[in-house]
Parts: sequence; C-alpha cells; structure tokens
Amino acid sequence: MNDAMIDALYKQAKEWVYEAGAMIKDSFSRKLDITYKSHQADLVTNMDKNIEKFFATLIHEHYPDHKIIGEEGYGDEVKKMDGTLWIIDPIDGTTNFVHQQSNFAISIGIFVDGVGVIAFIYDVARDELFHCVKGQGIYLNDQKLPSLRTNVLAESVVAINGTWLTPNPKIDHQSLIPIVRKSRGTRSYGTAALELAYVACGRIDAYITMRLSPWDFAAGYILIGEAGGTISTVSGESVNLLEKNSIFASKKGLHEEILSIIYEGAKSE
Amino acid sequence: MNDAMIDALYKQAKEWVYEAGAMIKDSFSRKLDITYKSHQADLVTNMDKNIEKFFATLIHEHYPDHKIIGEEGYGDEVKKMDGTLWIIDPIDGTTNFVHQQSNFAISIGIFVDGVGVIAFIYDVARDELFHCVKGQGIYLNDQKLPSLRTNVLAESVVAINGTWLTPNPKIDHQSLIPIVRKSRGTRSYGTAALELAYVACGRIDAYITMRLSPWDFAAGYILIGEAGGTISTVSGESVNLLEKNSIFASKKGLHEEILSIIYEGAKSE
Repeated sequence: MNDAMIDALYKQAKEWVYEAGAMIKDSFSRKLDITYKSHQADLVTNMDKNIEKFFATLIHEHYPDHKIIGEEGYGDEVKKMDGTLWIIDPIDGTTNFVHQQSNFAISIGIFVDGVGVIAFIYDVARDELFHCVKGQGIYLNDQKLPSLRTNVLAESVVAINGTWLTPNPKIDHQSLIPIVRKSRGTRSYGTAALELAYVACGRIDAYITMRLSPWDFAAGYILIGEAGGTISTVSGESVNLLEKNSIFASKKGLHEEILSIIYEGAKSE
Repeated sequence: MNDAMIDALYKQAKEWVYEAGAMIKDSFSRKLDITYKSHQADLVTNMDKNIEKFFATLIHEHYPDHKIIGEEGYGDEVKKMDGTLWIIDPIDGTTNFVHQQSNFAISIGIFVDGVGVIAFIYDVARDELFHCVKGQGIYLNDQKLPSLRTNVLAESVVAINGTWLTPNPKIDHQSLIPIVRKSRGTRSYGTAALELAYVACGRIDAYITMRLSPWDFAAGYILIGEAGGTISTVSGESVNLLEKNSIFASKKGLHEEILSIIYEGAKSE
C-alpha cells in the first residue's frame, strides 16, 4: 500500500470513527435515564455490538480484501498479520461507559503486513481524538503533539491498576511495589486505550497492565511507537499483536529503569 | 446567617470561583511550553499562591469577619469552627496540573458555626463545576443531580490509590485488599477534590484515602452530605474539619459494607 492509499484509508477511517462517536453520544443522551437503573450490562453489550457491526459492515463493503479482529465477533478468523488488518475495540472501558458516560474510547489500529500504519483512539465524551499515520507524528484532534522525551521514575506518573498491586495470578505483585514507591504517583483510569493514548501524549509517563487483548492495545501500540515511546510486555519482550499480552508502555529511559526494577524483584523471589 | 444571606454569599463566591478558573486557564495556555521543561514545581507553587491570595484578598475585603483556612498560608489562624469559615484549596491535584493540565480542581467549602452551607469543586480544564447550597441539592454546572442511591460493593467502582494497597505507615494494606477484589474495579485520578465530587455525582461509588488536609476534603465533605452519601474516616468516625484525616466517602449501604471489611481485616491481624 503506497502513501496515497494510506492517506485515503486514514481519511475514510477517520470519518467512520467520528460517525461511530456520534452514534455513541446519541445513544447515551437518549438512554442516560436508564443507564443506572437495571440492565446496565445489556446497554453496553448492545452498543459494543452495534458499533463494531457498523465498522465491520463498512469495511467489508468498501475494502473486501481487508481483515478485521474485533471484540464482539463481527470480525474475521485471523491467524496472521498478512495484508491489511483492522483491530477494533468499539468501546474500550465499558465499566466507565456504564458508570460515568466518560473515560471510554473507540480504539482502532490498522496494520499492513504486520506494520502499524494508522491509529485512532477516540475519547467520545471529551471529543479528544488521538490519531496518527505512520511517519507523520501523532495528533490530538488537529494539534500535532511533540515527540516523547525521556524521563526518570522519580519524576514520573505511572498508570497501574490496584489489582496488580495485590496478590494476583499474573505477576508477583511485590515486584511492582518499588515502582509505586519511587514514582511521583500512580493513577488508574479504567481504560487501556486511553491510558495508552495518555502515555503517547505525555499526560502520564508509563502504563503497566498484566492482561490485554489485541483490540485493547492495537491502536495504542501504533500511537506509542509513532510518539517515540516504547511498548513491550512487562518482561520486556515484543508484543504479539494476535495474542493476549501483558503491556508496558512508557517513555524511553524510563522503560529500561522500570524493567530493571521488575527484573530485580523477580530475581529476588 | 439566614437563607438570603447564604444565597448572596453563594452567588458572590461562585463568581470568584469562575474568575479564578479563568486565571488558571489563562496561565496555562501562556505557560504550556515551559510547564514540562525544568522548574515544574515553581509554576505550580506560583499558581497555587496566586489563586489563594486572590480569594483571601477578596474575602478579607468583602467579609472582614469571615475566617479562611488555606493551603498556601494566606488564611487565618483558625482553632475553632465558630462564625463563617472558608476552607480553600486553590489547586487540588498539583501533580496532574503540571503533568496533564487536567484532572485538578479549585475546592472551596464554606461553613457557618461548623455546618457546611456552600461548596464548590471546579474542574477548570473540563469546565465542570460541582456545587451546592445546603438543602438545595447538588449541581453539575446548571444541571441538578439526583440524590445518591445505595449500592453493593460487587457493583461498585472504588477510587483508591495504589499507595494504600502497598505497605504504608497509615493502614495495614492487607485490610483493603478484599475491597479491591470484591469491587467491580478500582480507579485513581490523583485529585481528592474531584474524587469526592465524583462520589457525590455517582461517577464512582466510593473513595478511600488515608491522609487528607481540611482544604482537600472540605468542599467534598459538604457535597457528599448534600448528595445523600456518607463521609467518615476510614475507621467510621466523624471527620474533624480542622485536622488531617483519613477519608472514606461512599453511597449509603456500601459504606457499612466496606467498613465491615476493613474492620474484619483489622481484627484478624
């Protein structure tokens, strides 16, 4: 796919992202009264499905040779990264969507033969679209953002959920405690897509989580690369885009510092 | 102070809150370039001081018999709750202010003879003003919000910072772990004022923290009472408005459920 084709694909996808955002906004302004009442999970499921179906239908129609991985089952059986692949989370942060009507996002990463070329993370409630085309830098709405600089843990804010700081089956939580202690503070927003977008734009310095599916991190993976940050698993390995992974995204420098803390913690077990 | 006087005080204070918000917005649009560079703490300190001084000067001029407790030292020596007392945090969430230019708030609670009568928590970046006059319900901007209902922990989102889930001098962190495990999820936004406002408006169900000063919680204390929630220390005692306290705010029902978990945890030590 040449640059002109990628630009055209980007423009088309962006239009659909805004359309999907408008559908979500519309649905929750109509349904706000019942959101808190009884069948909270239904509403989310319906919107998740509606939005993914919206994308899948359009993509299959306009780009019949493209493949889709999506959370809700409207995608394709995808075993390899060949060709053009859309990885879609129609609503990332569903609990927030129900409880807050805020802090959730549409997340879309587009890969060509395994290389991330286009990403969108759209915070619908705040109308903040984090997006990029490979090689052109990252944007928040129409504003181009600076590349990420390095940072040290002592001056960093780290997003990590409390779950991973308590005994859990994914990691020895003790190995993460020095990160909390040495950082300037921790945060947790309950949406992987936005937490990755916040690393990409510098609002937070690092994000650590133990279990994400491809649709949770695909767009963030592309954005962070384009912003000049580093993304890997929590043990420092490459992220497998077709599998569940732990995810550790951060500024450069900080990435090595945190990895060495986790490594020391694991070693001293 | 009669109702008409409280309404007049509310109107005047609200005007000042919006003016202060405009000053903060203005300062960070001018200084955004240098915010991330070197002397981050200076900028915060200056804005903290400027905003508190702005309020203190106006209050002393317009209401010479009112007293002020403020974080930055422009207030008065206050030993008791007699008369009219303003408790002010000019910028709550200073780390966020520096790192994000978002997720911080102006927090003002006004008490008459120890009773909270007026509260403002102003999320400047998002232009969300949470506010109330005692007995009139709570508002988000011009929208009146419903009173809080009860909830159970299994369906609750709880704000708690990672610090309190790791060994710390304020509480046996083990006693908090079942709360994380039994809840629908935890969050941490790094601003006590907004976390209390979010409990008051129902975006989160509970907020637990081990160490806040009066200026951090005064406005939230009033808002949560007015919203029909419960606020106490983490051991279930009344909050002392002139001292540092642990703070536990939540919906009714949930408050008893979480307290009994903490109590069981402490007992089994």
